Amino acid sequence: LNEADLIGTIERLLPAAPPDVLAGIGDDAAVVRIGDRLVLLSTDMLVEGVDFDRSTITARDLGYRAIAVNLSDIAAMGGSPRYCLVALGMPRDPDPAWFVELVSGMVEAAREHAVAIVGGDLSRAETVVLSVTATGESVPGGVVLRSGAKPGDRLVVTGRLGAAAGGLRLLAAGPREAARARSAGWGRDLLDAQCRPAARVAEGQVLARAGATAMIDVSDGLARDLGRVCAASAVGAIVRLDRLPLAPGLQDLLRLTGDDPLDLALHGGEDLELLATLPAAAVEPAAATLAERFGTPLTDIGEMRADPDARIVATSQDGAERPLAPAGWDHFGT
Amino acid sequence: LNEADLIGTIERLLPAAPPDVLAGIGDDAAVVRIGDRLVLLSTDMLVEGVDFDRSTITARDLGYRAIAVNLSDIAAMGGSPRYCLVALGMPRDPDPAWFVELVSGMVEAAREHAVAIVGGDLSRAETVVLSVTATGESVPGGVVLRSGAKPGDRLVVTGRLGAAAGGLRLLAAGPREAARARSAGWGRDLLDAQCRPAARVAEGQVLARAGATAMIDVSDGLARDLGRVCAASAVGAIVRLDRLPLAPGLQDLLRLTGDDPLDLALHGGEDLELLATLPAAAVEPAAATLAERFGTPLTDIGEMRADPDARIVATSQDGAERPLAPAGWDHFGT
Repeated sequence: LNEADLIGTIERLLPAAPPDVLAGIGDDAAVVRIGDRLVLLSTDMLVEGVDFDRSTITARDLGYRAIAVNLSDIAAMGGSPRYCLVALGMPRDPDPAWFVELVSGMVEAAREHAVAIVGGDLSRAETVVLSVTATGESVPGGVVLRSGAKPGDRLVVTGRLGAAAGGLRLLAAGPREAARARSAGWGRDLLDAQCRPAARVAEGQVLARAGATAMIDVSDGLARDLGRVCAASAVGAIVRLDRLPLAPGLQDLLRLTGDDPLDLALHGGEDLELLATLPAAAVEPAAATLAERFGTPLTDIGEMRADPDARIVATSQDGAERPLAPAGWDHFGT
Repeated sequence: LNEADLIGTIERLLPAAPPDVLAGIGDDAAVVRIGDRLVLLSTDMLVEGVDFDRSTITARDLGYRAIAVNLSDIAAMGGSPRYCLVALGMPRDPDPAWFVELVSGMVEAAREHAVAIVGGDLSRAETVVLSVTATGESVPGGVVLRSGAKPGDRLVVTGRLGAAAGGLRLLAAGPREAARARSAGWGRDLLDAQCRPAARVAEGQVLARAGATAMIDVSDGLARDLGRVCAASAVGAIVRLDRLPLAPGLQDLLRLTGDDPLDLALHGGEDLELLATLPAAAVEPAAATLAERFGTPLTDIGEMRADPDARIVATSQDGAERPLAPAGWDHFGT
């Protein structure tokens, strides 16, 4: 049973959603109608030893990241995050300084996006588990689902790809190598992308207003997350590999660890960049707005095309098309 | 650091809540204003080996309970639950039958209260962790906080106390004893209260309409949860121990394990009964409504009284007052 099988089982067992649920399981966030508002609801669990390693991430960064990954889900709907709840499991007798730093990191991430942490739950657990729930609201431009991509839409992505996965590989290379790479400059972006990822909240709202037809955050790798957009929209995609905005530090990482930058970008995950589909005419104005307001690059990396089987193909500079499997991070994969 | 210390640390680090947050950390659920509605938000984490034992609770009961404990938090505000999100951590290669039963139990609990499960997250974890978030809406009668109890208010509780803790002790006595007690009848109520607790959702709404001034669910034992109401309301309480509605099976359990029924009721926790304060004139009509509509007893167990130090005293049949420490379940206590 991989993650998709498990989610399929859940979908099969759930009764039909009531009419006030506009989007349920299967998008970055659920969309429900509450009174006169469309409300977004999303949850993410981070487990020690699986999603993070307490020996390589500071408590402050961990708290920051736990909030950021949730706000990213709201961002991927084009929404505005509002409230967070934090359920935290941790061993008995937590180090008070560690705990203060953890909460401070959460507060920091929440404050950056004017989000209020309004509740939570504490439980004892053998290892640290952080489960955050974020709520958001739709903003003018509406809610962007995964399912609206149309043949002919351009495929765009914010920021740089592969940085978070590169940071993870750098941490795995050892504390000395990570520290050296950080002080040499190129490692800092990779480590920050892994430990203190930025949720592209404002960017998501700009893309929604620009007419994004589908959007997702790249949390499990470009290939897998694009595969989800294609499957939900029942369209295919062609990705120009030579156009992928690879994180600059990946070339240095390649020399240190041998990790292929393209592989990290396609299958590495955790980047929290936004992958969106847009009508062709909307790309340039959106890119200009993102660059001007936030200094965030927006790169056109391909096109959606008619394909009921939702296949992805990749092209290199030689122009030849090769199938790209929607593979990436899977908690339950082999 | 016990649970209260940790929560205190969090409260100290959080910035002041924005005006749309009517109640934040420190109640059963947060209360936020979204558009024209008051929305309730609550989260609860259940950790294997701490909050449940997979060898003594079926997957279906575990799923049911994970949803019920969250709906109980909405019930304790007098609200109407609407949506749930489920974050689930579990070991790789979960038994498919176990997983189906787990989800089915969740669906069952959600269906009983017309709640939609709209999203979630799956993660790998060494042991099973279930983190559920519930949203709700206020209903006519308004939101009932912990902080509104007034001197002179009567103190009432729904259902029977000590059953869930009794069920836990019965499970600890061994599978053979638990099975025998179940088939003898008296064990069934205790085991069900532990494994398939009922969230008092409809009862909470009746109590809110009846004018409840404060309300909480008895998740950590009567003494501790009453202590929370007293502290939040800055009033004291007098509890008539001879009036406590002890779960009937506790007398049989006493003969088997020697566990004191009164101790289980006061300090055992997990009962999901509602503890409320009401103006005296409202008690009888509310009790009549609960009995008639749901067959749920409502018992008057004492009175709130002026005491800025929020102390609780208990009286027995002899009328003597003794202090009652607000002790009970604490995840981080010694």
